[in-house]
Amino acid sequence: MSNKFKIIPLGGLEQIGMNITVFEYGDSIVVVDCGLAFPDDDMLGVDLVVPDVSYLKENIAKVKGFFITHGHEDHIGALPYVLPDVNVPIYGTKLTLGIISHKLEEHGLLETTDLRLVTFGDVVDAGSLSVEFIRTNHSISDSAALAIHSPAGVVLHTGDFKVDFTPVFGDAIDLQRFGELGREGLLALLADSTNATKPGMTMSERTVGKTFDTIFSDNINYRIIVATFASNVDRVQQIINSAHKFGRKVVIEGRSMVNYIKTAAELGYLNLHDGILIDTEEMASYPPEKLVIITTGSQGESMAALSRMAASLHKKVSIGPGDVVIFSSTPIPGNEKNVSKVINELSIKGAKVIFQDTHVSGHACQEELKIIYTLLKPMYSIPIHGEYRHRSAQKEIAVSLGMDKEKVIMLKSGDVLELSKEKAVISTHVAAKQRLVDGLGVGDIGNAVLRDRQYLSENGLVVVSMAVFEGSDVLANGPELLTKGFVYVKESETLLEEAKFVANEAFEYSMAHGYTDMNRVKNEIKQALADFFWKSMKRRPMILAVILTV
Amino acid sequence: MSNKFKIIPLGGLEQIGMNITVFEYGDSIVVVDCGLAFPDDDMLGVDLVVPDVSYLKENIAKVKGFFITHGHEDHIGALPYVLPDVNVPIYGTKLTLGIISHKLEEHGLLETTDLRLVTFGDVVDAGSLSVEFIRTNHSISDSAALAIHSPAGVVLHTGDFKVDFTPVFGDAIDLQRFGELGREGLLALLADSTNATKPGMTMSERTVGKTFDTIFSDNINYRIIVATFASNVDRVQQIINSAHKFGRKVVIEGRSMVNYIKTAAELGYLNLHDGILIDTEEMASYPPEKLVIITTGSQGESMAALSRMAASLHKKVSIGPGDVVIFSSTPIPGNEKNVSKVINELSIKGAKVIFQDTHVSGHACQEELKIIYTLLKPMYSIPIHGEYRHRSAQKEIAVSLGMDKEKVIMLKSGDVLELSKEKAVISTHVAAKQRLVDGLGVGDIGNAVLRDRQYLSENGLVVVSMAVFEGSDVLANGPELLTKGFVYVKESETLLEEAKFVANEAFEYSMAHGYTDMNRVKNEIKQALADFFWKSMKRRPMILAVILTV
Repeated sequence: MSNKFKIIPLGGLEQIGMNITVFEYGDSIVVVDCGLAFPDDDMLGVDLVVPDVSYLKENIAKVKGFFITHGHEDHIGALPYVLPDVNVPIYGTKLTLGIISHKLEEHGLLETTDLRLVTFGDVVDAGSLSVEFIRTNHSISDSAALAIHSPAGVVLHTGDFKVDFTPVFGDAIDLQRFGELGREGLLALLADSTNATKPGMTMSERTVGKTFDTIFSDNINYRIIVATFASNVDRVQQIINSAHKFGRKVVIEGRSMVNYIKTAAELGYLNLHDGILIDTEEMASYPPEKLVIITTGSQGESMAALSRMAASLHKKVSIGPGDVVIFSSTPIPGNEKNVSKVINELSIKGAKVIFQDTHVSGHACQEELKIIYTLLKPMYSIPIHGEYRHRSAQKEIAVSLGMDKEKVIMLKSGDVLELSKEKAVISTHVAAKQRLVDGLGVGDIGNAVLRDRQYLSENGLVVVSMAVFEGSDVLANGPELLTKGFVYVKESETLLEEAKFVANEAFEYSMAHGYTDMNRVKNEIKQALADFFWKSMKRRPMILAVILTV
Repeated sequence: MSNKFKIIPLGGLEQIGMNITVFEYGDSIVVVDCGLAFPDDDMLGVDLVVPDVSYLKENIAKVKGFFITHGHEDHIGALPYVLPDVNVPIYGTKLTLGIISHKLEEHGLLETTDLRLVTFGDVVDAGSLSVEFIRTNHSISDSAALAIHSPAGVVLHTGDFKVDFTPVFGDAIDLQRFGELGREGLLALLADSTNATKPGMTMSERTVGKTFDTIFSDNINYRIIVATFASNVDRVQQIINSAHKFGRKVVIEGRSMVNYIKTAAELGYLNLHDGILIDTEEMASYPPEKLVIITTGSQGESMAALSRMAASLHKKVSIGPGDVVIFSSTPIPGNEKNVSKVINELSIKGAKVIFQDTHVSGHACQEELKIIYTLLKPMYSIPIHGEYRHRSAQKEIAVSLGMDKEKVIMLKSGDVLELSKEKAVISTHVAAKQRLVDGLGVGDIGNAVLRDRQYLSENGLVVVSMAVFEGSDVLANGPELLTKGFVYVKESETLLEEAKFVANEAFEYSMAHGYTDMNRVKNEIKQALADFFWKSMKRRPMILAVILTV
């Protein structure tokens, strides 16, 4: 057994999301986070993306547990897909475990999972390793950085973090402990790169509360609707606080919003001023200007509550000139057009739309990263959480603070980094492919299926079918044509008749040339049809040929 | 014949692009612009979107010509699709006509089209109407606003514009003439809303030149690659000027970039300092730090030159640590992820990527709109060019300057606005649907086809086929299954065998119940398979059934 200290990211380095990192020493493995990613635009029909945990399965005896930094999907969302294979204890702070419990319950996995509550400052024993939970700030409460103590040295994983000196709930990030760890000598730092291209400091979450107060005071005659991220409990708290100040009742819309608020309130992370929450059904009993609706849909997601309101599809809320709609969010890259669409729909209905100054990021900008580096003074740095360009920007920051370029290590998912005070080597690689989830299937959709979906989506489909008498060259029926996503059939009768003729000719040509292999005949027909459609209309539908011998 | 003054937008109000507006008085129609739009994300496989010009075809005798504000695709791109039906003269300034000529030549339409050159200040006679070309500024030279003079009053259409006091080529926008028109009394203003949500003023194009000088001086040891919009001739001029100052040769990459530069240089809109342009093949004769490559691909378009360089697919340019790549652009909404992808690929190859301060918009921000309103003091305003939220923001500006809310008219494409000093009425509507272009087909793809493409793209396809002896209930062959974009076939043999069994059972059930209508039998089989796939894997492939009687 080798007693090297290894760091193995199984995801999270090629994309935003799917964060999961393995720390290994001797007979012990600690896994930090187990997140999902949302599918890229080219992953057509894919629901979710989860990591390949073959390495954990192969080393299951060593795995001491999942150590979770915070309760966001990109850090916990793959647990239900991974736990059936890797059923080890899950460690986390109170709100984080509360959110995980709810998720496992939905997947019928709560009974069989060992959840272990951790408090900030706790050091969890994990065989040859131990894991210390340190308070940070982020866009969800109870976020932790993890210090992984090993005989080879201490490594700090920040999780997602920002430096918020005046957080809405709980204390500021434990910079003192960061200073101590730095003073004692830190082997390596793995820090959040999400905002590493952005100069300055991220504003405190509390600044958003002031903006809400201003907006509420400017719009006392309007009903106010606020869309934000369901998991941002502190944001919801501030909206509720403003509602309380201005004597409004609060309605919660959207399933995930209801779930998060329920969990947060039960665990004491949300102060619901007496009776301030009312049911959607009770709205009619209050004048509109005495209501605030907090809703999902800030990313323009088509099925979310706000989008349904905007499209007049929501059963209980209709939008009109008496409404002010606040987007307390910024569009995640890729969602800009959907958000625009919702804003247009709301504007057309006469609503006033506000999307400035009501959001701050949950991630550290450049000056915050400098604070962390200056406190921790790591020997090595491994930028995590972000695309290459974000991680590369963190590298530049580290170098600008005096770190040796060679000691800032750019890993790829699956790289096995062996780390000691003397050297850092990528010794080998382990499986770290993305696994695509579609319905109940996990990993049964790959590039071939996605390529076909892409092709079908752009070109549509023509199925040509015929029956032929066995051992003869005579058609028993057909060719018949069926198209989908290709042309408007009613207006293309002539074209399709011609295509049948082309298919028939190709069949007769094959017979006249004595082809007996039916695949060869099919190819002849497909090629003839492809040529025909390209010449006549410059299109390339997918062509499927069916020949049934009877 | 009615002598009302009518304004009829045939596009451009529900989306960015596809700008075309009809002005009609008595027996005369003037058409301003004839642009295309690029397909939305949900228009799968669609190449372009062009306007429905049925109204022009029906009134062809009245149509005096297309009057083009400037040479961008969203203002000229639909001409090749519209001219075959509406072959009237095209009026434009020199560069605009040069670009149109090139486009018509590619479509084989140059010989049959009547192009008429206009100079700023010219007033073109158009029956009961006349059209005056007034200089503006934009991200392409020779842009014009059009004053349409009618017996009912004068209407000003700004085209795309900004106020640039120090343009790179030519003079500043003719604010004096705007002032005169305002003093004489303007019936209505149709102004560009693209940046109406943005405070302040758009910076002068010239500021970008200074930034290029700084970047060139900071990177004297690097090869410099600049990606920008092919049509932004002034931007290209500034890059060439910086190259000239720093003793670099310039290479042009990307077909559309080459075309625009050729046209602009031939017409005298681009100063190519003696011998500064070299061919890609000559690059090897110069040290990399003495080269600038100006390229297409600033939007991350997968087939553009920069994207091919980033993906190592470009035959003549490979990217390395000696390169500085400047994005002289901002991502158009919807392109953010593609741009990120290219930046990541360039960074991984070691290139330095710069995307700050090297772009200014070509559209007027709020203070510029205020200048225009204050000079023109229109009786009515009809915000154009932009989504509803942008046009709505322009309305707010107009109202903030003292215009009566009722006199700022929010039109929809197809609305017929009848305008006089006494009143403005939407009297009726004309056809103004989008026509989708896919290959050679224009308008033969509609919602049904797009819905099928969408469904196929998310769920894939299963074709079940069988042959049955005529008049019997006995299968001659089948059921056979064929799938595309559904599952990885090699790993799903059991599933597909079971599915065949299900299809067979459904057929036998249909026969046992005496179904004779083959469509009913097909539906029975499709339903059985749909249930089977949903129960076993929570997926809903498109299912096509073929039954051939023999």
